Formats: sequence, C-alpha cells, structure tokens
Amino acid sequence: MKNIDTSRLKSIVGEENIKTDPADLFIYGSDSSVHSASPWVVARPANTEQVQKIMAYANQDKIPVVTRGSGSGMCGQTVPVKGGITLDMKKMNKILEINPSDVFCRVEPGVVDDDLNQALKPFGVFYPPTPASSRIATIGGEIGNNASGVRSVKYGATRDSVLGLKVVLADGSLVNLGARTRVEATGYQLHKLIVGSEGTLGVVVEATLGFVPIPKFRCLGIANFDQLEDAGKTVADIMGSGIVPSMLELVDNVAIKAVNKTMNLGLPDVQAALLYEADGMVKEAVDYEIEAMQEVCRKNNGFGLVSSYDAEERAKIFLGRKKLFPALSKFSDLLSSTSLADDMAVPYSKMAETARKIHEIAKRNNIIMTAYGHCGSGCMHTKILMEPNRQDQWESAKKAVSEIYEYVRSVNGTTSAEHGIGISKASAFKLEKSDSLNLMSNIKRAFDPNNILNPGKLMDAHDDWVTATDLRYMVA
Amino acid sequence: MKNIDTSRLKSIVGEENIKTDPADLFIYGSDSSVHSASPWVVARPANTEQVQKIMAYANQDKIPVVTRGSGSGMCGQTVPVKGGITLDMKKMNKILEINPSDVFCRVEPGVVDDDLNQALKPFGVFYPPTPASSRIATIGGEIGNNASGVRSVKYGATRDSVLGLKVVLADGSLVNLGARTRVEATGYQLHKLIVGSEGTLGVVVEATLGFVPIPKFRCLGIANFDQLEDAGKTVADIMGSGIVPSMLELVDNVAIKAVNKTMNLGLPDVQAALLYEADGMVKEAVDYEIEAMQEVCRKNNGFGLVSSYDAEERAKIFLGRKKLFPALSKFSDLLSSTSLADDMAVPYSKMAETARKIHEIAKRNNIIMTAYGHCGSGCMHTKILMEPNRQDQWESAKKAVSEIYEYVRSVNGTTSAEHGIGISKASAFKLEKSDSLNLMSNIKRAFDPNNILNPGKLMDAHDDWVTATDLRYMVA
Repeated sequence: MKNIDTSRLKSIVGEENIKTDPADLFIYGSDSSVHSASPWVVARPANTEQVQKIMAYANQDKIPVVTRGSGSGMCGQTVPVKGGITLDMKKMNKILEINPSDVFCRVEPGVVDDDLNQALKPFGVFYPPTPASSRIATIGGEIGNNASGVRSVKYGATRDSVLGLKVVLADGSLVNLGARTRVEATGYQLHKLIVGSEGTLGVVVEATLGFVPIPKFRCLGIANFDQLEDAGKTVADIMGSGIVPSMLELVDNVAIKAVNKTMNLGLPDVQAALLYEADGMVKEAVDYEIEAMQEVCRKNNGFGLVSSYDAEERAKIFLGRKKLFPALSKFSDLLSSTSLADDMAVPYSKMAETARKIHEIAKRNNIIMTAYGHCGSGCMHTKILMEPNRQDQWESAKKAVSEIYEYVRSVNGTTSAEHGIGISKASAFKLEKSDSLNLMSNIKRAFDPNNILNPGKLMDAHDDWVTATDLRYMVA
Repeated sequence: MKNIDTSRLKSIVGEENIKTDPADLFIYGSDSSVHSASPWVVARPANTEQVQKIMAYANQDKIPVVTRGSGSGMCGQTVPVKGGITLDMKKMNKILEINPSDVFCRVEPGVVDDDLNQALKPFGVFYPPTPASSRIATIGGEIGNNASGVRSVKYGATRDSVLGLKVVLADGSLVNLGARTRVEATGYQLHKLIVGSEGTLGVVVEATLGFVPIPKFRCLGIANFDQLEDAGKTVADIMGSGIVPSMLELVDNVAIKAVNKTMNLGLPDVQAALLYEADGMVKEAVDYEIEAMQEVCRKNNGFGLVSSYDAEERAKIFLGRKKLFPALSKFSDLLSSTSLADDMAVPYSKMAETARKIHEIAKRNNIIMTAYGHCGSGCMHTKILMEPNRQDQWESAKKAVSEIYEYVRSVNGTTSAEHGIGISKASAFKLEKSDSLNLMSNIKRAFDPNNILNPGKLMDAHDDWVTATDLRYMVA
C-alpha cells in the first residue's frame, strides 16, 4: 500500500468508491496489452471536484496517478507501472449537452462511444472517430490515445473532433481549453496537445465534441486480390485519384484463413481483400465513388467485386473484418493473439510492402503475424500469434517488433496510427522521435513537475517492454 | 542597433541578405495591424542551416527574434516590440515535393499560398486553408496564425492540413515533428501545438501538408435579408441541418453600403446578405446542398435568391465580398479602416446577435463598424472605421474593442477565429484564457527558456494595445 492515506481518499469519493482488495487491484492492473502491474488503490470519482481533490493530495504526496476508462488500450497505457492511484473515470458518464444548432455536444470522460452515438442518433448526427472497441471504449480513453477507426479516412481521428476540454492538472487546478466553434486561433491550442498524451499531462473531466450528419446512403463493397501488391497499389491509386472513401480496409491471407477456420465464413482463400465504403446524402454521389473505386480495383486485377447499400448485406460483407480479433485468438489452442506491433502508419504507396515485410519478419522469427487495417488513413495493424509461455517466443516477438518498426521508420512511417505508445511501443517511439524527446520531457515537466501523471510511459518508458512490467502470461 | 554583431549575421547569410537601413527597418516594423516598432536588423536566411546558426547566436546573446513572412498579419504578430532580429523567410520559398499517391506535399515556409495552389492544380488537388490574403500570405505565416478562410466551414483551418513540421528551436537545434500519414497517435503531437503559436515556440523551416481533390462542380448563391436576425437564424439552421456548405458568408448593411458607395455595385441596400456555396464531384449532390440551403433561406424570409455554377457568374456574385477590404478603406477620406476587433468566433446561434452588438457598440462609441465573416465556421469579422489622428477616436476604439470581446466571452465565443492574437487582441485573450495563461507560460519556457522568440506577444503582451507600440497613424 506504500505511503497512501486511503482514509483521505475515502473522505473524498466515499468508502464504496475505493478499492484495495488485491483481486480488484489485479484486474485494474491490466488492459488489452501484454502488461500487468497492480495499482496501490483504485478510486472512482463522481465529479470534477473529487478529481481535483484527489490530484491535489497525490501531488502533495507525490503519488503516481493513472487515469483509466474501460482498459481497452492495447499498449499498456493504463497499466500502473509505478503503482499509485488508478482513477476509474467510468462513474463520470453523463452526456451534459447536445446542441444541434451550434453543432457540438459536451460529455464527461466516462461516456462510452456507442452510448454517445445512440444519444446523437435522434438528431441525425454521429461522432465519427469510433474505434473497433466502441462498445466499451470511453470518450476519455479515446481522447488519451487520439483514437480513430474504420472511418478515419474520411472523418479523421479524435483530435479532429475535439473542440474543447476541461482538464484537471497535476496540482488539482482546473483549466478550460479550446472553444465551441468550428475554427479558432486563440493562442496555444492546448486541448489538441492533451489529445494523444496518454494521461501524462492532465485528467480530462469534460469534452466538447463536434459531430457530423449521418449520411442517408452508405454503400460497402469488397474486392479480392491474388497479389498483395495489387491490393496495395489499389489503395494508393484510390487515395491519389480524388475519391474520398468513408472506409478502405485491407485484410491479408492470414486474417482470411483465421476467420474461415474459426467461423467457417468460406471467404475465398486469396492473398488479400479490400473493403471499400462510400457515404453521402445523395445516392448518385455514392454511386460515383463506389464505381470509381471498383474501376481502380479491376485495373489492379481485383476480382469477386460485390457491393451493397443494404444494411444486412453490408454487415455480411464486413463480418469477416469485424470478427477478426476473436478469430485470431481462436486460431489455435497453442497460440495466443498478442497486441504487439499492434499498429503503425505508413504512406499509401508502402501499404503492400509493409504487409509483405510483416509476413517475412514473422516467418524469420517463427511466429505468425497478420496484416490488416484502415489503409485509407495509412493505418496498418498486426497481431503476433505466439506461444506466450515460451520464453524463446517472447524473444522472437521482441525481435520481430523491433524489425517491423525499424522498417516503418525507413519508409517515413510512424510508430502508431491510432493505438498510442504506452509501454509496448515506447522503444520504437523513442527511436522515431529521438530529436524531440527532450522537448517532450520539458513539456511534461511544464504540466506535471512532480511526474505523478502516468509515470514511466512514452519517453519515460522502459526500453525492453517484455521486462517493463509483469506479463499477463505465465512464462514457463 | 543594441548589442548585435551584424558582421556575424553577414557571415551566416551574406552581406546582401542583411538590412540595417532605417528606412528598411521601418518597413519591416509594421504589418497589417495598427502597430509599428522597428527591428534592429533584418536577416534573410536561404536555408535551414542558416536559420539554425542565427538562432544559436541569438540564443547565446539573448537577442529577440521575430519570424516574418509577407506581413499580412492583422494583430501585430510580426511587429518586433522588443527589437532584435527580424527573420524574413521569403527566400525559403521552394516547393520541395508534391506526392500525389501519398497525398502530401513538402514546402518551405516562404512559399506563397496561391503559388502552392498553382503548383498543385495539375494534380487535380488544392490546399484548402487559403485566407483572403492568399495572393501574398506565406505558408509559414499561415501556420503561425492557424489561418483559414472562406472554405474553412468544409475544409477546416491550417492545423487540420498540417501533417508534419521541421522546426528550428530557440537554441538552434532542429526537430522533426508529426508524420506523413492521414492519422497518427505517436505521442505528443507537437506540430499541432506549433500551428497558431505565432512564432513564439520555434521557427518553421519545412511543412508537410495534406491536400484535397479539386471538386468538379462548384455552385455559389446569394440571398438577401431585411432582418439581420433572419440571416443569423439561416446560418444556424443550415449548419444544424446536416448540410455541409463549402462556403457560408454573412455581409451586413454597413459592408453593402461600403461596396455600393465605392464601387457602384448596386447591390440591394438590405440589412444582410448571405453567400452560400456547395462543391463536389457529382452535380446532383451539389444541387441537393444548394437547394437545401435555399429552402432554409426562404423559410427565414430570404429573398433575391440567385445561384450559379458558372465561374464568371460566381466571381460576380462574390465580387462585393472580395472587394470589401479596399471598399472599407475608401469609405470616406476622413476615416481609416483599422484592423481592430478584426475577428472572433461565436456559436452559430449567436451570429446575428453578435453582428447587432457590434453595431450597437460602434454607435455608442461614435465609430463605424461593419460585421461580416465566414459564419459557416463560426467566424465573425469587423473593422473599425475611425479618424486615426484623433486621440479620442482611439479611446473610443479601445472601449469598443473591449466591449465586443466582453460580449464574445459572455456567449462562449472565442477571441480569434483565424487572425490570431498578436498585440491587439492580447488583453481580450488574457481575460478569456486566464485559467491557462500560467500553463502557456510554462510551455513557452519549455521551448524558449531565454524568451527570445517573438517576445512581448500573447500572454506576455502589453494590456493596452494602443500604447503597446507606436501607432502606424500620426496622432495629433
């Protein structure tokens, strides 16, 4: 329990909102990454004032504080490597305002993405960033990681939708950042800096978010390719041709085999498939985009082209992609699907080469890796299928991850597209951003002089992510 | 000349690129604002290495450095209130790369906006932020102020188009910020913080910019209103109805009178006019948006609705708005048009009330003010027409400006939409951002411990902008 005065915390949030039971702490010690490290105590604040009081106390006693939503982060962002207090923000889940004529809403950080979109639906609008985990992901967590998803190619990432933030700083003071308007040029736009800072600069207690109209028409199509390079060239050709898809996804053969094997989807066993979607208020415009994309697919030897406006049909077409995560975990009883080298972004022209490299590197290191992602926004994902209780497999995974990010840097790509850095990607991040790490540390100090906010992450994270924390897997 | 070693500067950029003639220094001492203050010396670097050497020298000797493009800033951003070195970046005007398949370009900061768009045209794409001053405004200056323009309602501001930046820091070191992809979540996204920092955090020496397809169809329309409130309601109704205009401009009666008087445009002498544009690749989609906007105009008593796809016709419709600046300066021989309370952003529902307030405040203070702007992005502009050599008129202007921004804050608006803060808006900025000024100062110190980069601006600016510098006008 270290030097924590739990009675003080109980007096702030109430006894029922403090957890110190080792079983609870163990649960709060892991997220969707391979890492695990228990906090000393979990506090569940109900409002801004409680967050301010907790921060003032933590700052005074120099106690680490990790802010946490649903723990769907894939890189260990919410794993408290230095212990301390974990702030579970899920009690702050009120939608405070939906303002259709001024085109913004105000929400607390614990609001779940899908819940927000349910509430926006009657107004004919939606909040676009929406990651694959939107069923559980909180707005606060999405802000912490600049999350995005399948539609980021058209609608951008979380940062593009955040107009303003209320943030509790390390010393407990409250600042109001940003504005409520489509544009602003009022000095340093610190709310944009908070987005993607992974809980190291402050605690978000309220967000003002923009939203966009729900399109009347959505059309989703698929195309198959016998050559990965043809699929990759299609992505670059589409993005370079003035088409604005609302979705452009690549799935490789490993992924297709996985969903076929575990779900009997009976998808053609091709080297790659592309999913492409267009949306809009006028059908002619959507037709135009879909036909243009299909033309590019055909030009690059795509086949088995199917597309549909029908919601059920679209769900069928998307099913394989949607179920990819569970499919990969069920791929083999021996193998676990680990979020390692989980995401990256590369220029469109390097998509195919990146997928190819991932396969080569996997093979060379005796592990299985799949390549898929939101190619329309430059985003590529992978998972490492490995035997997690074999030490040598971890060594192989470590080697593979560093080889992959070394390649990504060599083609002017970047370490994370939308999953953030946390612990698992920190070593690659430090190599990519070596010239500005010192600057980032100065900025961290400007916000958090006592280094209590999510310490030991990003530029301060351990270089060897395998030993940075306990692993969630028993290593024999 | 203070403690400057010009021979050292000459050895870096060459004698022909150093200006010390008082006449030159006077020119470099003013921009499009009311302010004036001469630098000690002007240096015109040709490359990054020269910028690094100048900064290393300036940092060592604690000499102020102001970075300048074309000086089209309206709030005194490039007026060197503390003297020092003015860096004229216009020699660094190379377009380094246009990469259509990866959908980005790389440019030096001295590239003029219109020149970039000319170069992009053959690729069927354009760089959207484009302020009204695009004929002279440099990309570097636009980045410094997070500039935007008539199409920001659809395409956003400069920050939304900047993917990455190369920046020389105060100590002369070079950092590479951001990435080359549509999305990224690789730690602190410092390039987004540099945008809008008005030269106080570093010197931009290269920018990686996104671009978008040139739409095949553009349709521009106009509607007249006898009541300002009807025009304002139309703006909020359009933005709240799921329409995405590519332009939505409001012009008030003062502005209409000005262009009629000085250019005999013969526009109907109404209380307000709205200009609305839609663009896209498919005519049916553009028709849909235009018809939807016209329906909202009619519902709110708009009349004289005209629209056209024809480029010449569109130019005619837009002429009044385009010539508004010169028209206001020619409004009366006695009066000068000054950039004061030059821009602000307010929620859509407050557009009409804001224009009305501007008129009331002007009347009460015996000056003439017009209200116009890119309402679709919440942006409102004004100019103060005054007798600039009457001391009492300056006192009136000062009173009017503070009353206007007090109102803007009261309706949750913000001090600048797209012109930045500089000197003229600093006092309003400090009142709006009072809770985060200390944080901003800490961040400024993290970048620039010796406070040499554009000192005396933003949070460090003089509260009384009339006496902050010499005025560009002779006060009797």
